[in-house]
Amino acid sequence: MKIAKHGGNIYEVAEKLGIQPSEVLDFSANINPLGVPTSFRKALIENISLIESYPDPYYQRLIQAIGKYHQINPNYITVGNGATEIIFSMISALKPKQALILAPTFLEYERALAKVGCEVHYYRLKEELDFIVDEGFLKALHEEIDLVILCNPNNPTGQMIHHEIMDKILDRCREQRINLMIDEAFNEFLDCPDEKSMISRIESYKNLYIIRSLTKFFALPGLRIGYGISGNLDMLQKIASVKEPWTINSFAALAGEVVVKDQEYICCSKAWIDTEREFLFEGFQGIPQIKAYRPAANYILLKVLDDQYVFLQEKLLEKNILIRSCSNYENLNKSYFRVAIKDREANEKLIRALREVFYEG
Amino acid sequence: MKIAKHGGNIYEVAEKLGIQPSEVLDFSANINPLGVPTSFRKALIENISLIESYPDPYYQRLIQAIGKYHQINPNYITVGNGATEIIFSMISALKPKQALILAPTFLEYERALAKVGCEVHYYRLKEELDFIVDEGFLKALHEEIDLVILCNPNNPTGQMIHHEIMDKILDRCREQRINLMIDEAFNEFLDCPDEKSMISRIESYKNLYIIRSLTKFFALPGLRIGYGISGNLDMLQKIASVKEPWTINSFAALAGEVVVKDQEYICCSKAWIDTEREFLFEGFQGIPQIKAYRPAANYILLKVLDDQYVFLQEKLLEKNILIRSCSNYENLNKSYFRVAIKDREANEKLIRALREVFYEG
Repeated sequence: MKIAKHGGNIYEVAEKLGIQPSEVLDFSANINPLGVPTSFRKALIENISLIESYPDPYYQRLIQAIGKYHQINPNYITVGNGATEIIFSMISALKPKQALILAPTFLEYERALAKVGCEVHYYRLKEELDFIVDEGFLKALHEEIDLVILCNPNNPTGQMIHHEIMDKILDRCREQRINLMIDEAFNEFLDCPDEKSMISRIESYKNLYIIRSLTKFFALPGLRIGYGISGNLDMLQKIASVKEPWTINSFAALAGEVVVKDQEYICCSKAWIDTEREFLFEGFQGIPQIKAYRPAANYILLKVLDDQYVFLQEKLLEKNILIRSCSNYENLNKSYFRVAIKDREANEKLIRALREVFYEG
Repeated sequence: MKIAKHGGNIYEVAEKLGIQPSEVLDFSANINPLGVPTSFRKALIENISLIESYPDPYYQRLIQAIGKYHQINPNYITVGNGATEIIFSMISALKPKQALILAPTFLEYERALAKVGCEVHYYRLKEELDFIVDEGFLKALHEEIDLVILCNPNNPTGQMIHHEIMDKILDRCREQRINLMIDEAFNEFLDCPDEKSMISRIESYKNLYIIRSLTKFFALPGLRIGYGISGNLDMLQKIASVKEPWTINSFAALAGEVVVKDQEYICCSKAWIDTEREFLFEGFQGIPQIKAYRPAANYILLKVLDDQYVFLQEKLLEKNILIRSCSNYENLNKSYFRVAIKDREANEKLIRALREVFYEG
């Protein structure tokens, strides 16, 4: 089990190109281009000395702030060093024997499942259905499965699970005593995110575990802060028991407390994503060599329809543009790429660069 | 397995006292009172935007800096979210069945061992020998032990293992194929720290694993940054394979890069500890109700010799002074306390407060 290849390794790319990491136009990591919220910049400068003490081992202020943000009981929340720590510690506590995951989906589920020796079953999403989760998924919930992991919206496809199907999955999992983990790391980028979150169901479905991240929407990937939500207090206790102490550093905890209250940042981000999602998606429609899958969140899955996919990443890199190859996802191949939705200037550059690559070869 | 009680939870104490956490005079956590190095404060303010990108998953710059700091090959280094992550991931990779640890010693070893189902044997340090590790330890290295963990200087006793005995332990462990973890989290506070470190032995002893922390000496407990050193590249590979990605956030990685080069901070800290260690220890000699164990690092183990130990912590708290009760350490009891060595003003306050408690009751 090695470190999985993800997007966003601008350090490696910059070294290869002989430029500074900051000069890479990074479409490979799905981060809000509005950047670090000013509210947190201010709080950080005023509170540098925070790090002279250990963090509160219970992270009470952070948990209270997240509870208010979602209007839920803080007892239902566990916080971690990025969503990754929550995924690993939940899986370590749930001890699944046979898990069902989507293909393609976020790579760390499989790594975390391998760590506890769990057998992994894939539900292979169909290209002809634009990789949406269809009714067939319910049939895959056979008796031996004890954990289902869904990423919603799914990464890297950008597709949401339809509300009706999600309801059926919730019921079926409860009936069959299957634990259900839903990773909502990209929820805030959706239209009407609260309605599309399953957080409201945690009291009715004690087998439900929601994973959230503050990394993407609040542009804090370098800070590492995520959390889990569940109505199953016994299991939250178990998760706490397998976790290491103080995994979130004081700056990350401070960021979490501050940004979830930053209404201005949240509003500006929504205005940006509403406009730019449409702009970039429409831009891709004008390039016949690619198929763009309609995005629900802040990233777009692309398929190159001719054999130019072979050189695409390299040719964009010559223009200092980094996109994410999807070749290491189960059920995708080298003709698929994922790009983040960035600000207007960057999005225009990407469209222009793609046109140049495809037309000028 | 619950969160172990450590020193430094000033949040809980402040809430109880109805004061701000910053008003607690915290002798319970062993942190350099010189505070966050200025070099890091500057670097942080200049580099806030670092967190808009994911950290380098290989932390190359950080590892290079640590390599230079110790003048060792960077390939021998693994970095983590505090020494705690290194302890947990090393133990998870080494998979010990029967481990020998000191009693008393740092609490997280036992938690990490429990997590992998390892049986724990204690070597009970003798009060009459001032809790030093004596030759008897060698006899405790019986055949079934496959991991020894030593904390050197030991926490909470403040005692160093004598050079001759350490040499014998190293040889005996290698002969008997026992893995040996030495936690040197407090090394920089010693006289001649480099000579007392076992880092120079890693190429000769492939069964040797050193744990280090930047938290205590560089006053960064809120940042979480530690590392492991070993000449056993196969095992380092295994450790990498059980670790989660990006566990160190960008600010912590930046801190690590910067502070190990900060010669001014290192020199000032050495001057402070040389003077204040003697001052505080001498101060305790004037209080007949306590025995102070001669410290090697930046904290002092105290034993209250009469029954006033019952109220000591509470009475000091009334003066906003927090000390660490050692009642939850194996082989100690409620009459033992650990205090950090702080700056002159704080050290004087502590001595004055202790005199008041013992003389005025």
